[in-house]
Amino acid sequence: MIKIRLRRATRADVEAIVTMLADDELGSLREGVSPVVAKCYLDAFNEIEGDTNQFLCVAEDEQRIVGTLQLTFIPGLSRNGTKRGQIEAVRIVSDRRGESLGEAMFAWAISECRSRGCSLVQLTTDKVRSDAHRFYDRLGFEPSHIGYKLKL
Amino acid sequence: MIKIRLRRATRADVEAIVTMLADDELGSLREGVSPVVAKCYLDAFNEIEGDTNQFLCVAEDEQRIVGTLQLTFIPGLSRNGTKRGQIEAVRIVSDRRGESLGEAMFAWAISECRSRGCSLVQLTTDKVRSDAHRFYDRLGFEPSHIGYKLKL
Repeated sequence: MIKIRLRRATRADVEAIVTMLADDELGSLREGVSPVVAKCYLDAFNEIEGDTNQFLCVAEDEQRIVGTLQLTFIPGLSRNGTKRGQIEAVRIVSDRRGESLGEAMFAWAISECRSRGCSLVQLTTDKVRSDAHRFYDRLGFEPSHIGYKLKL
Repeated sequence: MIKIRLRRATRADVEAIVTMLADDELGSLREGVSPVVAKCYLDAFNEIEGDTNQFLCVAEDEQRIVGTLQLTFIPGLSRNGTKRGQIEAVRIVSDRRGESLGEAMFAWAISECRSRGCSLVQLTTDKVRSDAHRFYDRLGFEPSHIGYKLKL
């Protein structure tokens, strides 16, 4: 029985989220973490919070933050004018992986997308993350697309 | 010399955009187009217009709309709190393909992402669109990710 609570992140959660983003084979190459949370992350948090189409989520157990993901609801004309729900920046703290917290977080995320009128949930995952591929396959996601990225 | 103008779409452009979305090997399977633009598309247009992180773009020549794409600017904590620019719903009218209009549209889109502070431009494309893959490869996009989709 997994007991986690999923809720919208607050400013006080930013340090825990950034620590999880950095504690990752790819994230460690691109995040800077310090005990005092850098202004760039707090500014970004304010932008997320000010956009009603963003939902930065944290998962917490009785003691601490154990996971995070970000949902973006994208309005568009295609698919008969329905929204897309996009999931980015999925992380689970390293000592709680393998306990199906991801399943619980995704069940919540998919349900949230449905309730916001999305006809599709989408995400991209780096080709090297083979554990993640098995996870998304198992949830019924179709690996139908190529995800292209251009660094600026 | 390609003479096109790129600008934010207005309500009056919705029919031309939806017609382009449907005139496509995949889009034809999922869009309904009628001379009177269906309410679902106009409602979606209002949502796009009300979201400052969306930029629905049309390309026009001296006579008519010849292309479209949608940009979404996604704030996030990862990558040191920088934004992602996402491109969706790219189309060029069928009789103007092969004239490098796509290059001009993407040069504009990438420049727009840069000016909005994005550190990354991203998009997904269906695995069956092999012409599109060559196009994105040529522009320097890296096919580093798998794009997973879940229909609701």
